[in-house]
Amino acid sequence: MKLFPYREVKAEDAGEGTFGVKVRWLITKQMGAPNFAMRLFELEPNGHSPLHSHPWEHEVFILEGEGVAVNSNGEHKFKTGDVVFIAPNEQHQFKNTGKKTLNFLCLVPHKK
Amino acid sequence: MKLFPYREVKAEDAGEGTFGVKVRWLITKQMGAPNFAMRLFELEPNGHSPLHSHPWEHEVFILEGEGVAVNSNGEHKFKTGDVVFIAPNEQHQFKNTGKKTLNFLCLVPHKK
Repeated sequence: MKLFPYREVKAEDAGEGTFGVKVRWLITKQMGAPNFAMRLFELEPNGHSPLHSHPWEHEVFILEGEGVAVNSNGEHKFKTGDVVFIAPNEQHQFKNTGKKTLNFLCLVPHKK
Repeated sequence: MKLFPYREVKAEDAGEGTFGVKVRWLITKQMGAPNFAMRLFELEPNGHSPLHSHPWEHEVFILEGEGVAVNSNGEHKFKTGDVVFIAPNEQHQFKNTGKKTLNFLCLVPHKK
């Protein structure tokens, strides 16, 4: 068993194509997780991920804040306590449209 | 994309060996998730899961409340914002030791 406050994990810049986004890799393959990883994203106001797609899914839970999830049908508002499922190969983007930091969990399968 | 408030998903009794535990299956294989499922557990004060083990892992995020995670080394306290990783075949139990409902996410791989 591993048990720790999420803030103990370093928040890193989320990298290429993101703006004002940090990520904490909370549960990883390196830790011994055999199938999927838990990450926590922190988006500053106006922060966003790129509009992109990839062959793996996202399982998302909005911990705090508000924003929009963009896909080919437009922008879809979300807020604290919402669940978002992005299917493999579906175009998507997350934007913070609120005045506070937006925090969400986003889980992904390990890359094969 | 599927986007919905978690409360829209029915809270069901979590079944055998649990006491005062409800579960909402938020993201499932039936919804199209190819690898793993997201569930939200709600434990009433003194509620607990059974002390048990199984061949799959748990990836847990404590959304609200406080409690203990039990393993072969004893009880380990947790609170809002904590992360818990239970490895495959590790004995474990969750107990609500607080005065309010304990809510946590617990993700599991699909059964093969």
